[in-house]
Amino acid sequence: MSEKIRIGLAGLGTVGATVAARLLQGAVPRAQLVAVSARDAKKDRGVDLSGVDFVADPQELIAHQGVDVVVELIGGADGSALALVSAALEAGKPVVTANKAMLAAHAAPLSDLSVGGNVPLAFEAAVAGGIPVIKTLREGLAGNDIARLCGILNGTCNYILTRMEAAGLSFEAALQEAQEIGFAEVDPTLDISGMDAGQKLAILSALAFGVAPAMDNIAVTGIEAITAADIAFAAEFDSVIRLVGTAAHEGNGVYHSVEPMLVKKSQALAQVLNELNAVSITAAPLGSVMLQGPGAGGGATASAVLADIADIARGFGRPLFDVAVSAMTESATQNAPASEFYIRLALADKPGSMAKATQILAENGVSIEEVVQRSSEAGDSYLPVVFITHQTEKASLDAALAALAAQSEICNAVLALPVFAEEM
Amino acid sequence: MSEKIRIGLAGLGTVGATVAARLLQGAVPRAQLVAVSARDAKKDRGVDLSGVDFVADPQELIAHQGVDVVVELIGGADGSALALVSAALEAGKPVVTANKAMLAAHAAPLSDLSVGGNVPLAFEAAVAGGIPVIKTLREGLAGNDIARLCGILNGTCNYILTRMEAAGLSFEAALQEAQEIGFAEVDPTLDISGMDAGQKLAILSALAFGVAPAMDNIAVTGIEAITAADIAFAAEFDSVIRLVGTAAHEGNGVYHSVEPMLVKKSQALAQVLNELNAVSITAAPLGSVMLQGPGAGGGATASAVLADIADIARGFGRPLFDVAVSAMTESATQNAPASEFYIRLALADKPGSMAKATQILAENGVSIEEVVQRSSEAGDSYLPVVFITHQTEKASLDAALAALAAQSEICNAVLALPVFAEEM
Repeated sequence: MSEKIRIGLAGLGTVGATVAARLLQGAVPRAQLVAVSARDAKKDRGVDLSGVDFVADPQELIAHQGVDVVVELIGGADGSALALVSAALEAGKPVVTANKAMLAAHAAPLSDLSVGGNVPLAFEAAVAGGIPVIKTLREGLAGNDIARLCGILNGTCNYILTRMEAAGLSFEAALQEAQEIGFAEVDPTLDISGMDAGQKLAILSALAFGVAPAMDNIAVTGIEAITAADIAFAAEFDSVIRLVGTAAHEGNGVYHSVEPMLVKKSQALAQVLNELNAVSITAAPLGSVMLQGPGAGGGATASAVLADIADIARGFGRPLFDVAVSAMTESATQNAPASEFYIRLALADKPGSMAKATQILAENGVSIEEVVQRSSEAGDSYLPVVFITHQTEKASLDAALAALAAQSEICNAVLALPVFAEEM
Repeated sequence: MSEKIRIGLAGLGTVGATVAARLLQGAVPRAQLVAVSARDAKKDRGVDLSGVDFVADPQELIAHQGVDVVVELIGGADGSALALVSAALEAGKPVVTANKAMLAAHAAPLSDLSVGGNVPLAFEAAVAGGIPVIKTLREGLAGNDIARLCGILNGTCNYILTRMEAAGLSFEAALQEAQEIGFAEVDPTLDISGMDAGQKLAILSALAFGVAPAMDNIAVTGIEAITAADIAFAAEFDSVIRLVGTAAHEGNGVYHSVEPMLVKKSQALAQVLNELNAVSITAAPLGSVMLQGPGAGGGATASAVLADIADIARGFGRPLFDVAVSAMTESATQNAPASEFYIRLALADKPGSMAKATQILAENGVSIEEVVQRSSEAGDSYLPVVFITHQTEKASLDAALAALAAQSEICNAVLALPVFAEEM
């Protein structure tokens, strides 16, 4: 108990520098920072590392005198991060990482090393930043059967959507604002396409349902098609639009999706604003819990890394997913659950368009609950019309959308979003 | 790893029966239920206990053949619950309990036994039911400095306040409704007085700040004085009223309070509805996280008990608070932090009343930001008036309220609530 575990830390960006500073302040009493590795030994990072060994090659941390645990904060799915983590696990040294991309790309071989060798590989920081969702899923809800988890897993998308909502911005303007203040990358594709949220969902689902992480099994739609008009229509239904990742028991498997959804303002996910993340978990016998907090940023990510270090220092470390990915269920692709849908059409401003559109919906078994049509501005030849459907099978919806898209003389654009249901 | 820990369970109420059923279903793979104790061996609890030993006296569980861990779900601060837990700890057997009243009343001797003997005493179920707040505080946020925690810790009060809000009920009518559906006891004093929330806050503060739990250090105000008029006034300020427990660094100690507060609807705590609980924790380097979920009920409490059993089965159990209460800081009573306040007066409907009241506030250094006065109904000799103050020292407020109360010819009732500040 009195012996401290000795930490070797690779990567001294914002997260790494914060972790180093906190360790040097004694924030984790049972852990001691003994060695660091970074590209530039001399750079001022606002933390005095003079009492810590510096090694140029992160690989040297593993064999460095006395290092018990390797903390990987280099980043990148492959390259030196993967080499370091793999070699540390092979050497039997526990690893803490914040590297979601690496876990998503190499879950199987990493789990073989970690589970096979019974070497802890801790990754709280890889999903939802400072929110302790990994710990909650695997420990706080141990003894429950998890029915569904859903969440707002990408802060960039949530920032863009809530800024469109609050300030009436277009998607492009909100994205630009997010880029200017550092909430979106110069190339924002990974975030706004929903892929980043999908990678996190795959990791959460492996823990919650024991399903092997695979992006192929996740129906991913990004937020690029959401317009200021959609946000305004949503408000007319007392709703907002959120990018929601969902993993839920469906049929005899698990259905995974990441997609923009219409969320009633009275529901908890609608209250998740700006760059925050949130995860809601429905389980038996528990019921539902929701965790909300910063999903990214140096301090939040460092917090999760420090918690993982503290767990390992207490002997509470666990192998990646506890079960080798090769031993997990391979989720067959499941059909999307039935849902209510928001359908936005651009409908030709001429007699019979609405009759034809509603006839197509009806013919395909899509039953309409509410309709909103905006008045025409002079010269508009197409008018936005929004339908909220009753509970509809996804196959019926898709057939109806395809039929509408084929009627270019009455309809020139279609967007459909599921309506988020708090209870399944 | 393959050896299961053997569980002896005392108390087969709703929680106990759910825990037993889940254990028998194998919900915690490393744990096995081997013996139970309850008042009535024959009662049908919807779970087949035929394969489990029954002992009449819970104390017998400790020495019962092969019991490794004792689960105490008897309830009550003293009596057989305390005797069982004390004896189990003395015998070196880990204990899981949901018994907040016992922990609040006997924290010091129980911590001596648990910490002194290094015997786990797990109590996730004692605070906020199914929300894993104990685990989040001591593990998920390890490595952080906690600045503040605040939360909605009593589901009965939250149900009453949100029903007053949603249905325009009086306090008495909402309380009666809560009693009818089982969300309030026949004698609701412990809940509506704020004492129950105070006990939970004391436990959380011991973990968050290392302050010895003591109700004397908590400024507790219940919700009995909140009227339908207050709820309506709050709405005029785009706010609701919530019973908020707060523990925060203040001066060179920690200030603890449980009191009804005015909470802006845009703040996360305002969205916590009905019988739900929520805890928000502000920490560095993390930022803020909020956890929300069912704070009571058989399923939620059973979930927390099962998680504690799973932790102990993995060897992750920890002694009560990790530190003996006798070694903790004794928090000197701290002054309440400055705050904005909601002040509701019943002001005599005659010339000069308002002038006099505002003069008294001004003389005591209470500066007014907003005022709402309702029109008189015929025959009312006193009119409700509400002020929202600027940031005000508590001592100034108290002096002003005392001076107002002394002016019975202009003012016959006074209520003051702090305005909740999301950031300190």
